[in-house]
Amino acid sequence: MIMRQFIAMFTPRPIGYVHSPYSETSQVPRGLDAKHDAEGELEILSEFEAGLTDIEGLSHLIVLWVFDRSEGFELMGKPPCDDRPHGVFATRSPRRPNPIALTVVELLSREGNKLRVRGVDMLDGTPILDIKPYLSNVPEEKLRRGWLAEAESRKAQ
Amino acid sequence: MIMRQFIAMFTPRPIGYVHSPYSETSQVPRGLDAKHDAEGELEILSEFEAGLTDIEGLSHLIVLWVFDRSEGFELMGKPPCDDRPHGVFATRSPRRPNPIALTVVELLSREGNKLRVRGVDMLDGTPILDIKPYLSNVPEEKLRRGWLAEAESRKAQ
Repeated sequence: MIMRQFIAMFTPRPIGYVHSPYSETSQVPRGLDAKHDAEGELEILSEFEAGLTDIEGLSHLIVLWVFDRSEGFELMGKPPCDDRPHGVFATRSPRRPNPIALTVVELLSREGNKLRVRGVDMLDGTPILDIKPYLSNVPEEKLRRGWLAEAESRKAQ
Repeated sequence: MIMRQFIAMFTPRPIGYVHSPYSETSQVPRGLDAKHDAEGELEILSEFEAGLTDIEGLSHLIVLWVFDRSEGFELMGKPPCDDRPHGVFATRSPRRPNPIALTVVELLSREGNKLRVRGVDMLDGTPILDIKPYLSNVPEEKLRRGWLAEAESRKAQ
């Protein structure tokens, strides 16, 4: 094990905020059949607006954001789509050692520092950490979804 | 704009470190034809090992990590695969307001707190922030890659 105890970490800061139709966790669709078609807006702070240059050409974006209304973490937990517990790194649980979330959204349009997007599952006012281009898929024939596929097939029975 | 000035952020901490064949940025394949077939290991701190439960069933993982050898950020920059500058949020540049990186890796095997993976593009000793299951793709027919597709077609001419 390489010990890099004095590693350079960083201080997270919001680059903007999400405008979402959801104000409470209970309103966000969860579970196996959940569809995330909700539209919302990513409002980027004006000091970072230049960083959006050429983003209009991308159809999909990876949004990293903070689970800011979640506290602490648990290493094992039951996701809403299964009745069995799994390790936190095999799930999308908000209760993670670093409470960073990831959502892939479809970019509908841009107006200055505002991105209109489809597929939000964040709460209104959620701080955004980063936006990255979604550029490639894992080949479908190579993708295995482990416990989630098992939960789906149990549910289908 | 919702002003949530006193928002709860968090203090990032490593959940583990990457063992990679690369010790210098110049060794990591970059650019349009770059292949990321390198194997490496994600060594998770033993205090977080329980969080890996059931991860073996997943073929691909999303790894969030820190660009710990990068300093500061620039809102516009030229990626290695293009001769034109783009906004940082439309590229994978390491010089971002929050220096968080994302790599999708293929999980080859697990031994306790160590994950053997293919597709590392991190430097040896890189701190890991989070691991998430890769569960779904964007439909290929809906994916547009903007400036990257343009750079590829200019190169092909």
